[in-house]
Amino acid sequence: MVSAKNLQPAIAERRLAELGIVLPPVPTPLGAYVESLQTGKLLYLSGVLPVVAGRPIFTGRLGKELDVEQGRTAARTATLNALSAAREELGSLDKVTRVVKLTVYLAAQEDFLAHAKVADGASEMLRDVFGEDKLPVRMVLGVASLPLGVPVVVEVLFEVDA
Amino acid sequence: MVSAKNLQPAIAERRLAELGIVLPPVPTPLGAYVESLQTGKLLYLSGVLPVVAGRPIFTGRLGKELDVEQGRTAARTATLNALSAAREELGSLDKVTRVVKLTVYLAAQEDFLAHAKVADGASEMLRDVFGEDKLPVRMVLGVASLPLGVPVVVEVLFEVDA
Amino acid sequence: MVSAKNLQPAIAERRLAELGIVLPPVPTPLGAYVESLQTGKLLYLSGVLPVVAGRPIFTGRLGKELDVEQGRTAARTATLNALSAAREELGSLDKVTRVVKLTVYLAAQEDFLAHAKVADGASEMLRDVFGEDKLPVRMVLGVASLPLGVPVVVEVLFEVDA
Repeated sequence: MVSAKNLQPAIAERRLAELGIVLPPVPTPLGAYVESLQTGKLLYLSGVLPVVAGRPIFTGRLGKELDVEQGRTAARTATLNALSAAREELGSLDKVTRVVKLTVYLAAQEDFLAHAKVADGASEMLRDVFGEDKLPVRMVLGVASLPLGVPVVVEVLFEVDA
Repeated sequence: MVSAKNLQPAIAERRLAELGIVLPPVPTPLGAYVESLQTGKLLYLSGVLPVVAGRPIFTGRLGKELDVEQGRTAARTATLNALSAAREELGSLDKVTRVVKLTVYLAAQEDFLAHAKVADGASEMLRDVFGEDKLPVRMVLGVASLPLGVPVVVEVLFEVDA
Repeated sequence: MVSAKNLQPAIAERRLAELGIVLPPVPTPLGAYVESLQTGKLLYLSGVLPVVAGRPIFTGRLGKELDVEQGRTAARTATLNALSAAREELGSLDKVTRVVKLTVYLAAQEDFLAHAKVADGASEMLRDVFGEDKLPVRMVLGVASLPLGVPVVVEVLFEVDA
């Protein structure tokens, strides 16, 4: 439990630079929706896919065609796309005051058990950028299928300066 | 990205009339929960099923017993039920200031790929009623099964006049 | 539809005592995330598993290795863990002003149909503790797999005194 009073100042843009991360272009909606939307102090993002230049870096199921390490890579790639969508909306990721919630959807075999390990690919990226004291709550689940046949979709809810 | 300042005035009830849409009766909970709940400026709805007069218009899986067009019809039907639940809570859909988030759950075969096309059945209905500038963020996923064996469930989060 | 004005005073801690419920220890994250996080008047919780002393009380799928009654027990157990996480954050469950949303994830066979009955295991626990007038909206879905192979995960969003 972290009190809002004790949160460190925003360091996200500096941390990105230190990590040598250049955010990818903003993701493009696959239908009639928007990638980001702010209401009050909450910034909602659409589910983001592990795509680079509009193409999935992997397709297939975890535990079948794809292994845990590929799942973690997909989770990190999707998270970078989420950060890009957030920056586009906010102007700067330093306006993020907290990562509120992370949901990670995995297209995985029924007997898959490494949900937490794959989801940590996204969680650790968020921690590296926003800091340990801004970690979100999390839900991770194995699903039957995801858009474009990707193995991972990441959904992030941020708290931002209003 | 649409600034709140530039949003068009509420036209939802007039648009519904122009589209010749008469909303169905309010959905009935299948258990111990409520269909809608407002907290602050957010109106949460329960997941709504594609039912007419309490009965599913389709049961089965997309990509197996049901095709994409039937999925789109199911998505539209569920969305009308969601609008009915929202109007019951608000008195008028003109109190909706923004559709914040749309989640579309599809009971689909593992190799199903037309998630976005089916989900657009819901998105396009929301756009037709609330306007292009009030489109939500979106998540669509293929799941193993849904209540009553329906192929689609739609979940909507609205921003409303507090 | 329940107006906030008519809500009964908070009775959750007294009800827990009357029901003879002693909440379990706070759940432990399985990765890089937190179990609870408050933003404004909303208290978000991570998805909570039906674990006792860190071990799943059941693993397997509903409709295959596990039946509806076991699913309901798992839902109740997970809900107690959620209440424990909420109390840890708030100090007292009497600070809960409303249960906003309940999402119940079921690892179930594709032909499973008793989603509502299993989810009511969680809903009824929340009703018994917080009262009929604080019931949430709800989503329940059948998924392909869940962390640690459990059959049920419960996710709760609370409205609390800011």
